[in-house]
Amino acid sequence: MALGLRSPPPRAAVEHLVRQAVYHRLGMPLPRLAQAPNPLVVNVSARHCHLTPQAVEALFGNAHQLQVHKWLYQEGQFAAKESVTLIGPRSRVISNLRILGPCRNLNQVELAYTDSIALGFEIPLRLSGNIQGTPGCMLMGPNGFFEMQEGVIRALRHVHMSPADAEFYGVTKGDDMRLRIGGPCALTLDKMLVRVDKSFKLEVHIDTDEGNACNLQPETPCELLK
Amino acid sequence: MALGLRSPPPRAAVEHLVRQAVYHRLGMPLPRLAQAPNPLVVNVSARHCHLTPQAVEALFGNAHQLQVHKWLYQEGQFAAKESVTLIGPRSRVISNLRILGPCRNLNQVELAYTDSIALGFEIPLRLSGNIQGTPGCMLMGPNGFFEMQEGVIRALRHVHMSPADAEFYGVTKGDDMRLRIGGPCALTLDKMLVRVDKSFKLEVHIDTDEGNACNLQPETPCELLK
Repeated sequence: MALGLRSPPPRAAVEHLVRQAVYHRLGMPLPRLAQAPNPLVVNVSARHCHLTPQAVEALFGNAHQLQVHKWLYQEGQFAAKESVTLIGPRSRVISNLRILGPCRNLNQVELAYTDSIALGFEIPLRLSGNIQGTPGCMLMGPNGFFEMQEGVIRALRHVHMSPADAEFYGVTKGDDMRLRIGGPCALTLDKMLVRVDKSFKLEVHIDTDEGNACNLQPETPCELLK
Repeated sequence: MALGLRSPPPRAAVEHLVRQAVYHRLGMPLPRLAQAPNPLVVNVSARHCHLTPQAVEALFGNAHQLQVHKWLYQEGQFAAKESVTLIGPRSRVISNLRILGPCRNLNQVELAYTDSIALGFEIPLRLSGNIQGTPGCMLMGPNGFFEMQEGVIRALRHVHMSPADAEFYGVTKGDDMRLRIGGPCALTLDKMLVRVDKSFKLEVHIDTDEGNACNLQPETPCELLK
């Protein structure tokens, strides 16, 4: 795996540490949310795909390995340098569809509804990985085409968390939480699926429709609620 | 003004009448929301523009009058048959930008943030009509170009209502309300500006980012809250 740019820590992570330090220095008790074991990071996932090694070879050539463009917040996950062209059911295309690595054992394209409407798709809302019976599409890379028989979805908005986070918030895997997002276009996402794994860092993933609806910026206040 | 297609009443309006009739027939007291003087209609405004007669003439020819494609829910408002091509700051274009009629005394383009990002704009969130200092753009029609010096905005989400609706909900012009939208991608829009006029029919206007974030469909349950 090639070296990629290590991103600076997200603003929410820095703020969380500063808040804890300030309360400590002032000798004041920490407010409830500042006691959270981890900072709340909210990231917008633009449209992207996950591919199998076979699909990567068909698109980019024999034995091709994805190159790291940028490391993502979840450990070991990265945006690849490689992107593909997606060809939808009406021959409309989206260029530069980013591949996220590392490779998986299934092919999946995650779009926002605005993307799918532009392409002429009707796509279902699914938990990532649950792609049976979903529409397919054609992908095009520098080495050729790869046809996906299924796998085009809108991913259910979700929050990754460790068991310690789940305990703090009083939730378990599969629960729904709410995410309150502030600012001039404030909104509350009412169904935020909880995914728990000890490898997960606390992070909410929303798509570009959700991110643009509330104009999510690095400084926008966010609160995760049971 | 040419004749246009009169749309069937929105589903929410039919449901409101049926609900009132059913409770009446059963001899049961109406629940609070069914007592509302008017049905709650929620519509998604796709990107569009409002133009002055001078702009219409520059784009479509001398003495050109907008033709009605479809009447909108607010009395006298319509989607015109005419559309224009918008050319953004990086020479990227959006074709078929719909004109809403009748003509106004200012030129204004209303985009979702997803649109503005695709075009390469940074656009501000503004109340419709409040366009001072906003970015401009170039419009192209079959008769020529028209340059807007300013007027490209994301419109603040808002709800139109009559004084009777405002009294029922206990709000006044300029207040913020909340709109709770149900379904699998449920969310609550926390800042919904109240606009009151005796000519207004009760209607929420949200943009395509907001509508796609919650996958708003005709049958999606919506509730307007103080």
